[in-house]
Amino acid sequence: MNIKITGTGLYLPPYIESSKETGKLVNRSEEWIIAKTGVKERRKSDIDVDKMGAIAGKQALENNQKPDLIINASGVPKQTIPDTSVFFQKELGLNDIPCFSIHGTCLSFIIALNTSASLIQSNTYKRILIISSDRGTIGRNFNEPESSSLLGDGAAAVLIEKNNSSTKTLHYWKMNTWSQGANLTEVRGGGTHLHPQNPNTKLKDNLFSMDGPSIYKIARKKAYKMVINTFKETSFNREDVSWVVPHQASLKAIDAYHEYGRFDKEKVINIVENTGNCVAASVPMAFVTAVKDGRINRGDLIYFIGTGAGLSMACALITY
Amino acid sequence: MNIKITGTGLYLPPYIESSKETGKLVNRSEEWIIAKTGVKERRKSDIDVDKMGAIAGKQALENNQKPDLIINASGVPKQTIPDTSVFFQKELGLNDIPCFSIHGTCLSFIIALNTSASLIQSNTYKRILIISSDRGTIGRNFNEPESSSLLGDGAAAVLIEKNNSSTKTLHYWKMNTWSQGANLTEVRGGGTHLHPQNPNTKLKDNLFSMDGPSIYKIARKKAYKMVINTFKETSFNREDVSWVVPHQASLKAIDAYHEYGRFDKEKVINIVENTGNCVAASVPMAFVTAVKDGRINRGDLIYFIGTGAGLSMACALITY
Repeated sequence: MNIKITGTGLYLPPYIESSKETGKLVNRSEEWIIAKTGVKERRKSDIDVDKMGAIAGKQALENNQKPDLIINASGVPKQTIPDTSVFFQKELGLNDIPCFSIHGTCLSFIIALNTSASLIQSNTYKRILIISSDRGTIGRNFNEPESSSLLGDGAAAVLIEKNNSSTKTLHYWKMNTWSQGANLTEVRGGGTHLHPQNPNTKLKDNLFSMDGPSIYKIARKKAYKMVINTFKETSFNREDVSWVVPHQASLKAIDAYHEYGRFDKEKVINIVENTGNCVAASVPMAFVTAVKDGRINRGDLIYFIGTGAGLSMACALITY
Repeated sequence: MNIKITGTGLYLPPYIESSKETGKLVNRSEEWIIAKTGVKERRKSDIDVDKMGAIAGKQALENNQKPDLIINASGVPKQTIPDTSVFFQKELGLNDIPCFSIHGTCLSFIIALNTSASLIQSNTYKRILIISSDRGTIGRNFNEPESSSLLGDGAAAVLIEKNNSSTKTLHYWKMNTWSQGANLTEVRGGGTHLHPQNPNTKLKDNLFSMDGPSIYKIARKKAYKMVINTFKETSFNREDVSWVVPHQASLKAIDAYHEYGRFDKEKVINIVENTGNCVAASVPMAFVTAVKDGRINRGDLIYFIGTGAGLSMACALITY
């Protein structure tokens, strides 16, 4: 498939919560947090996900024509109904433009990117704005020091259009879900299962819960296999990849792409130390950060890869 | 685009709640409910959305090969994380198969249908199982007699494959969103805006709220225009449509496709009297009901159309 990322946007909330400050909330030292998660600081937003996402979306639209579709690709919504894409559209003043959400937790952006390529390929849409915006800090369970030290807030957006040259740009896409891991990463509340009105719903059911070590154990092997298969099933080699843009799950998870995935360490985009794990916004935030600081350039081969609650894994190999 | 619906499934929870019974909950008479909404009875489920959807999904897979993608196209999730598709996959025993959610409230199914066609057209997937499953009765606000008399529970599923003949089957797709209507249909809780832990979140924020008359006022005109444009922008006439499958928003909303849309009344599939408005499951439930009772046959031209919170409208013209 033949798409071009023609616009990028990023929103980092101005307030920085240091790991010293987070330490007080979870009753752990700054050193403990950094050793466990790799996160030195994270952003904490005072504005909600729709406003955060719209700032990133507006940036991605600069000097571009308006989109003909808006996709929300976030991990957690603003509210149950309507879906968050509608609130992005409202903030952006793009009345009439269709919008909906794609949800695959932390993989939402990679799934939306691939789905957008199909929607453009089939001539259904010409110009798709994908926005990922998450406030991980809202759902922190301070009784889970590790997961709540990881989470941060942020938003990023990209504009996708048809690539007019005949060169293929989306070279590979793969996703798998292993639902035996469905309970390893959860926010059990917020839906029909443990509805807020249900007397059995406990406070902690509405907060993020993650069994990091169990996920890492499964994901390391699955990620290794996914990387191997990518280069078996395409004409590319690992060395052809300019930049690996992984989900910023934790420093350990990012380092695994170097340690086990055998990519050069400096090729793996890592923003987790300063932003934490921003749920679905992490992948596009890492990508847009590296575009804006000049590391990622036109023609570079980008390998998006990550894990999401499910447990799912997905990857996409794209020429920028 | 060229797709074929090769499997269909339906789940109607066995418990029937009559409007006499609903009347006691909302402090209104049976007659008032039927006059206002057109709903005589609705189903109320004792099992959760994942189990409901998996029953419909299993039916859609009968005598078919297993899908290579599962899309959840429901209105309200089982829980915030992971997304409901994972729980469908778990119930269906389809470990490894990728899955994610498409969310556009009551339009989720029509959006997923069109998106699946693009994913099949681009050879990304061959066989996509779309499941819509909703428990509208969970979120009823009994202080809103009209909206809570409308809601019901149900699930339906379809399997979509590539059509091997050269004849085009998906003839038209259109969606629009007018976010000035974002607050006309809401469940304000369940996300970052009015999180269950937020002291400002009121009980009613977690329940369904709808300004039916205001939506109807906007939607009637928008639907009329969408119908007119469909037959302006395709080679078909209104008379070519075998069956209109509308979202079962209310009896008044369904009747408008005859009254203002000028389709023959008997061509408009209407299940709302016995199932109520089952959120995103309504459209596929109406479709599968008419397939199973023999009204819809191979070769029929189907016009899916509906409104969703947003306010959004979408339609798709498909040869079955």
